[in-house]
Amino acid sequence: MPLFQDYRQGLVLLICYLLSACSSLSSSPRATGDLGLIIERASGKVQLIDTSSAKSYATIGNLGDLSHASVVYSRDQRYAYIFARDGGLSKVDLLTEKLIRRVVHSGNSIGGAISQDGKLIAVSNYEPGGVKVFRSDTLALVADIPATYFHDSRTDKTKSSKVVGLVDAPGNRFVFSLFDTDEIWILDFSQPTIENPYQLTKFTHVGRAPYDALITPDGRHYIAGLFGEDGMAMLDLWHPEQGVRRILPDYGRGGEKLPVYKMPHLEGWAVAGDLAFVPAIGQHQVLVVNTRTWKLQSKIDVYGQPVFVMARPDGRQVWVNFAFPDNGKVQVIDVDTLQIAKTLAPGPAVLHMEFTPRGESVWVSVRDANKVAVYDTRRLEQTASLAAASPSGIFFTSRAHQIGL
Amino acid sequence: MPLFQDYRQGLVLLICYLLSACSSLSSSPRATGDLGLIIERASGKVQLIDTSSAKSYATIGNLGDLSHASVVYSRDQRYAYIFARDGGLSKVDLLTEKLIRRVVHSGNSIGGAISQDGKLIAVSNYEPGGVKVFRSDTLALVADIPATYFHDSRTDKTKSSKVVGLVDAPGNRFVFSLFDTDEIWILDFSQPTIENPYQLTKFTHVGRAPYDALITPDGRHYIAGLFGEDGMAMLDLWHPEQGVRRILPDYGRGGEKLPVYKMPHLEGWAVAGDLAFVPAIGQHQVLVVNTRTWKLQSKIDVYGQPVFVMARPDGRQVWVNFAFPDNGKVQVIDVDTLQIAKTLAPGPAVLHMEFTPRGESVWVSVRDANKVAVYDTRRLEQTASLAAASPSGIFFTSRAHQIGL
Repeated sequence: MPLFQDYRQGLVLLICYLLSACSSLSSSPRATGDLGLIIERASGKVQLIDTSSAKSYATIGNLGDLSHASVVYSRDQRYAYIFARDGGLSKVDLLTEKLIRRVVHSGNSIGGAISQDGKLIAVSNYEPGGVKVFRSDTLALVADIPATYFHDSRTDKTKSSKVVGLVDAPGNRFVFSLFDTDEIWILDFSQPTIENPYQLTKFTHVGRAPYDALITPDGRHYIAGLFGEDGMAMLDLWHPEQGVRRILPDYGRGGEKLPVYKMPHLEGWAVAGDLAFVPAIGQHQVLVVNTRTWKLQSKIDVYGQPVFVMARPDGRQVWVNFAFPDNGKVQVIDVDTLQIAKTLAPGPAVLHMEFTPRGESVWVSVRDANKVAVYDTRRLEQTASLAAASPSGIFFTSRAHQIGL
Repeated sequence: MPLFQDYRQGLVLLICYLLSACSSLSSSPRATGDLGLIIERASGKVQLIDTSSAKSYATIGNLGDLSHASVVYSRDQRYAYIFARDGGLSKVDLLTEKLIRRVVHSGNSIGGAISQDGKLIAVSNYEPGGVKVFRSDTLALVADIPATYFHDSRTDKTKSSKVVGLVDAPGNRFVFSLFDTDEIWILDFSQPTIENPYQLTKFTHVGRAPYDALITPDGRHYIAGLFGEDGMAMLDLWHPEQGVRRILPDYGRGGEKLPVYKMPHLEGWAVAGDLAFVPAIGQHQVLVVNTRTWKLQSKIDVYGQPVFVMARPDGRQVWVNFAFPDNGKVQVIDVDTLQIAKTLAPGPAVLHMEFTPRGESVWVSVRDANKVAVYDTRRLEQTASLAAASPSGIFFTSRAHQIGL
C-alpha cells in the first residue's frame, strides 16, 4: 500500500512542521522595551539587540547605504524606521526580525523623524531638496513638499535647497532648515483638512547656511548651526510669532585656530538642568551654555575636537567622543564640578554612544575594532562587548517615547 | 477497521489543535511600548490596555486590595509589579496576560519602586514598618530592613516606624522616609559584597512626620512633605554629605483657612523647566516653586483642593484634579502664561491621570462613572472612553524608562 504509506508520511511531516512552528512561536514572546539596533554601515545590515542581556538576537540586511543612517521607532516600539543615505526608508519588525518594506524616495537623504502620534514619518532630502511624508503603517506617500528653489551659481541651474536638521515637535509638527536658502520651516499636521493636510510656516533670513539642528528635550527650542557665519539660529516653538533669533554670536569657526576635522553633530547637544553642553567647532573644548539666557557660561578643555556631546539621562554626566585623529578616546564630564571624571579608551574610531533609558549603561560603537563596548556609567568600566562589522549608530527603542528623537 | 478509523480521527484532531494553537500564537505578536494597565480598585482586578487603539485587551483578577495600588514595570516593559494595600506584591505578564506570582509580605503596604538596573523591587511597609527588597525575576526576598523602633504612647508599645515616600534613585539606590521617627534613609545596592548586600545612610531630625515624598525627574532631589509641621525636607542626592535641608517654610496646613479634605499626593508634583507646580494643602491653589532657589514664586487659583498636579511630558501644560467635593473637574494650566487654559468635567470622582509618553493624550480615571476618559491634550477634547469598574490608578509601560517612577 504505497499510497497509504505516503499519506502517513505526509501526515507525520505536517505534524512535525506544526509542532516546530508552534514551539518556535510559543517559546518566548519577546517584549520590546529593552531592544535596539546597531547600524553596520559597511555591510548595509543592522543587528537587533537586547540591552538586558547585552546580546544580539538577529541580523537584517539589504538596507542600502547605511553611512550616516539614523533610526526612529513606532510608538509601540515594534518597528524601526531606518533612514539611509541613498534615499531609502526601511521598516523593520523587531519581533518577526524581518524587513517589512523599503521605499527609495530620493537620491540622497540625511535624516527623518516620526510624528508625536506615531502616524507619520517625515524624511528630509538633499537631492532633490525637500521633505517627503509617509504613513508609518504602509509607507504610502502622504505629502511631498519641495524646498525653495534657488539659482546655483556653480552649475548655473535652478534647483531646490538641501533640507537639513529635520526634527519632530509636539503637536504633530516637523521643523527643518533649508541650507541653500537660509530658512527654517514648520510643517504642521495637527489640523488636517481635505484641502490642506498640513500648514507650512516659513522663517527666512535665519542666518547663512544652516547645516544641522537640534530640538531641546522638552520640544520647545529649535536651534540650527550656521555654516556660513558664526552664531546659531533659535526658534522658540512656544512663540513662533517672535520669529527666529540669533544666539551664541561667537559660535562657529570664527577664530579657526585649528583645522576643523568634522563639523559636530548638533543632535548630540546635551541638556542637563539649566545647562546645555555644546561641542565647540574646531576647538578642543566643550562649551557650557545657560539655557535660561542662551549665553555662554564656561568652557571645558577636552581631549580633541568633540563630535557627540551626550548627557546621561539623569544629567549628572556628559559623555564626549572626538573627531580624527583623537577618535579612540571618550571623556566623561562630571556636570556638578564641570571637570573631566575619566578618560576612556574604547578603541579605534568611536563613532556613536547610546544610553540605556535610565542611564545605568552606555553603548559605544568602535568602528575599527569591529565591536560595540558597553560601559557601566557609575563605575566607568566596560562590562560587555559585542562583535559588529564597522558599527556606527546605536539606537534603542526607548527613543519611541522621547520628543525629538 | 474501527481502530484505523480512530487513529485517523485522532490525527485529524491533533492537526486541528496544532493549527489553532499556531494561529492564535502567530496571529499577532504584541509589542509592549504602548501598553499599560488600569486599576479596578473595587474588584481587585486590572485591565490591560493598549494606548494606540485606546482599547482594553485583557483583565487579570485575584490581586487583593487594590485601593491606593501603584505599579512599576520591568525594563523590557513586559512585567508589571503591582503593590497592593494589603501587603501583596503581584507580578503580571502583559504578553501572556497572566498573574505569574504573588507574595504577601506585610500586613499593610503603601508603595514600591524598581531599581535602576531592573533587578530589585523594594516595597515600603506601614505595619510592621520597614522595607523589603525582592528579586524582580523570582520575587525571592533579598533584604528585610526594619525601620527604627520607637515607643508608641497611644498603645504603650514599642513598634517600628511606618515607611513612606519610597522612590528609586540613580545608582541602584532607594530613598524613603520614616513617618514616626522623622528620618530619611538611603538604601544603596550599587556595591554589594558578600557581607553587605547594601549600604544604609540615615538622616535624622529631618522634620516632623514626613508623610509622603517625591524625587525630581532627574533623580537628584528627594523632597518629603511634613505632616507634623509646615515646610518640606529636601535631600540633594548629588550631595548627601550636606544633609537634609528645609524648603518652602510656609508649605503645610499652617493657616488652615479651609478644612483639608485630602492630603495631596506628592508624586504628582510637576516639574516643567525651572518651575515645580505643587498642590497647596487645604487651599484652592497650585503653588509655583522655582527649582533653582526652591522658593515660592507664585500661586495659581484653581477650582478646588488639588490632589494630583501633573505636567504634560513637554512641560507646556499642567493638569490638576481635585479633592471631594470638587472631584468631578480637571483644570489645565498653561505653563507659559500660568493661566487656566480650560476647565474640563470628565465626570464624578476623577482619581488619577496618566499621559502618553510623548504627551499627545492623557487618560483620566472617573471612578463613579465607571469609565476612563481619553483626552487629546492639544484640542482639550475627549477622544475615547473605556468602561472600567471603579477605576483608580492608570500606569503606562513607558514608566519603565523613567527615573523615580
